[in-house]
Amino acid sequence: MNRVFNFSAGPSMLPLEVLEKAQKEFVSYGTTGMSVMEMSHRSKAYEEIIFGAEANLRELMAVPDNYSILFLQGGGSTQFAMVPLNLMNKNNKADYVKTGQWSKKAISEAQKYGKVNVVASSEDTVFNYIPTLDPSKFDKEADYFYMTLNNTIYGTHIPDSLIPNTNGVPIVGDMSSNILAERYDISKFGLVFAGAQKNLGPAGLTIAIVRNDLMGNAMDITPTMLKYDTHAKEKSLYNTPPTYSIYFAGLVFEWVKSLGGVDAMQKINEEKASILYDFLDNSKLFKGTVVKKDRSLMNAPFILPAEELNAKFIKEASAKGFVNLKGHRTVGGMRASIYNAMPIEGVKALVEFMGKFELENK
Amino acid sequence: MNRVFNFSAGPSMLPLEVLEKAQKEFVSYGTTGMSVMEMSHRSKAYEEIIFGAEANLRELMAVPDNYSILFLQGGGSTQFAMVPLNLMNKNNKADYVKTGQWSKKAISEAQKYGKVNVVASSEDTVFNYIPTLDPSKFDKEADYFYMTLNNTIYGTHIPDSLIPNTNGVPIVGDMSSNILAERYDISKFGLVFAGAQKNLGPAGLTIAIVRNDLMGNAMDITPTMLKYDTHAKEKSLYNTPPTYSIYFAGLVFEWVKSLGGVDAMQKINEEKASILYDFLDNSKLFKGTVVKKDRSLMNAPFILPAEELNAKFIKEASAKGFVNLKGHRTVGGMRASIYNAMPIEGVKALVEFMGKFELENK
Repeated sequence: MNRVFNFSAGPSMLPLEVLEKAQKEFVSYGTTGMSVMEMSHRSKAYEEIIFGAEANLRELMAVPDNYSILFLQGGGSTQFAMVPLNLMNKNNKADYVKTGQWSKKAISEAQKYGKVNVVASSEDTVFNYIPTLDPSKFDKEADYFYMTLNNTIYGTHIPDSLIPNTNGVPIVGDMSSNILAERYDISKFGLVFAGAQKNLGPAGLTIAIVRNDLMGNAMDITPTMLKYDTHAKEKSLYNTPPTYSIYFAGLVFEWVKSLGGVDAMQKINEEKASILYDFLDNSKLFKGTVVKKDRSLMNAPFILPAEELNAKFIKEASAKGFVNLKGHRTVGGMRASIYNAMPIEGVKALVEFMGKFELENK
Repeated sequence: MNRVFNFSAGPSMLPLEVLEKAQKEFVSYGTTGMSVMEMSHRSKAYEEIIFGAEANLRELMAVPDNYSILFLQGGGSTQFAMVPLNLMNKNNKADYVKTGQWSKKAISEAQKYGKVNVVASSEDTVFNYIPTLDPSKFDKEADYFYMTLNNTIYGTHIPDSLIPNTNGVPIVGDMSSNILAERYDISKFGLVFAGAQKNLGPAGLTIAIVRNDLMGNAMDITPTMLKYDTHAKEKSLYNTPPTYSIYFAGLVFEWVKSLGGVDAMQKINEEKASILYDFLDNSKLFKGTVVKKDRSLMNAPFILPAEELNAKFIKEASAKGFVNLKGHRTVGGMRASIYNAMPIEGVKALVEFMGKFELENK
């Protein structure tokens, strides 16, 4: 079976080179005589893997020394609780920017543990833009300031240039769908986190990057496993971490390095996105749903003028090997997720197919 | 590189047939044109995988219809919090049996959320036996009764025949190191859980089997992701589960079925364990550390008469391809973990090597 171009929002396409390398050493890794899956997480062979991955990620994202990189479990949904449980510890309140489904979930989870102040929202137009972040509305007493950096469902993003000055209030960024895809200055943040299943590797691994001074003051009710400092103290080896997923993510880090790092990756992503957005902007049939200035580099939702056409397009695209283009149920239409692992050829081929579809259906 | 016999306590040996099958379909699964790792968890192809795995596990363990099988994350350590957060909801107290490191951790986590009554302990002799469970000491008002069914570190187990009658108090069993290795009547339990990394597959997947009537009454402070009913309602698809690990565990379930199921597996495990224990009982040099009647089928700790001999044995064994035999730091000496995937040939070869070592070092 030939490989398809997989536009899934996550879990999603992984780099073919990485898959092939992992396949080759799947049953027996190096000279260990065992699969990485079978390795004790306390063995020397495995320590090389996890600490090597950590070092490469630190280099790629230019993570300063006063931040810990943690390999966790439970996805973004667990972070929605961990963030308030660990950080809402002074004034028991936080500022949130509401830009989609995931920030809504983060808000409702945080409300269990303290007071949430929504400082900006784009809910009025189904989250198809990034609201203005007006520092005069920020609470100087907030324990943290929370934002989703890329909105997978709605296809918007908040690039590094729009990270606001919060006057010392630590910024928490959900980077689940754009980690390693565009450059952020980590020193602007108190904490960023990302589920692995979009740009990093298999589902079941969550990365958190936490400024060290923010750890160690979790609420008393916090489960041990949900305290950041539990994992920071033990270098992510407090209990058995998701060992294979960390290994795989490590291979992806090496792959990103081999392409030139995050800045090079961002250039490629900008090129891929512009091919798709240029087509949408020039099409008389297809239409992007997001306000231009706020368009994500990763997720591009678009629609056709009729429901039947959407269905027809998705069906015909799938038959040609462009799969998982159906949009999220709250937006409808289509969504092309073009994460790091989607080659530029995949985007070009999709746009070519869209052009043909337009000719045949005008 | 030839594969070694890996006696690691976990992550540990996996069945070679399963590794080879997973390797073959690693880059492209069936006719999907993608790796299982790249599949949307909402896709039909993936639903077949996860629901198929669930059905096979239900059959293998004869899980009654009024129990949910959940695919979770976070390992046993997260269960130590989830159990009290979800079940300590009537009288805010529970009975615990203290048989090792893991029950100690479970106890100290539960104490954050309510009152713990330790009804039996074997801490007096470093947990080398299972204490008598005297129902007259059980609290009839306890919200649940907690026990570790196999003690990985100390090499003891509580077989199905010793599960006490708790007069309706739901029993919680930590089955992390003997799930699918010996038969338990699930209907005796309110909840069992197991990390995958010993008998099921890659680390990062946790199985919980929960009686349905016990869900839905978690404490208010419980994070959404730590409520069992969050996952039960959505068939483990509330958020992205560890998709690849579930797929791999599904292959292991099929492998256990192909060998004849849990009863057949238990017979093989009893044979493997008796080969090792018979040798230990007849040896003048090696000595098992556990009281005979309570010996685990999975983890066999043993010692030599001097520290230098332990070190010498571990070194020479490793050179011959018998790896990870070093005992846990709290017990010392050696430990051979012989989970389902350890072939009987591995145990025979180890015992043969031990015999030679004894001859050379008497």
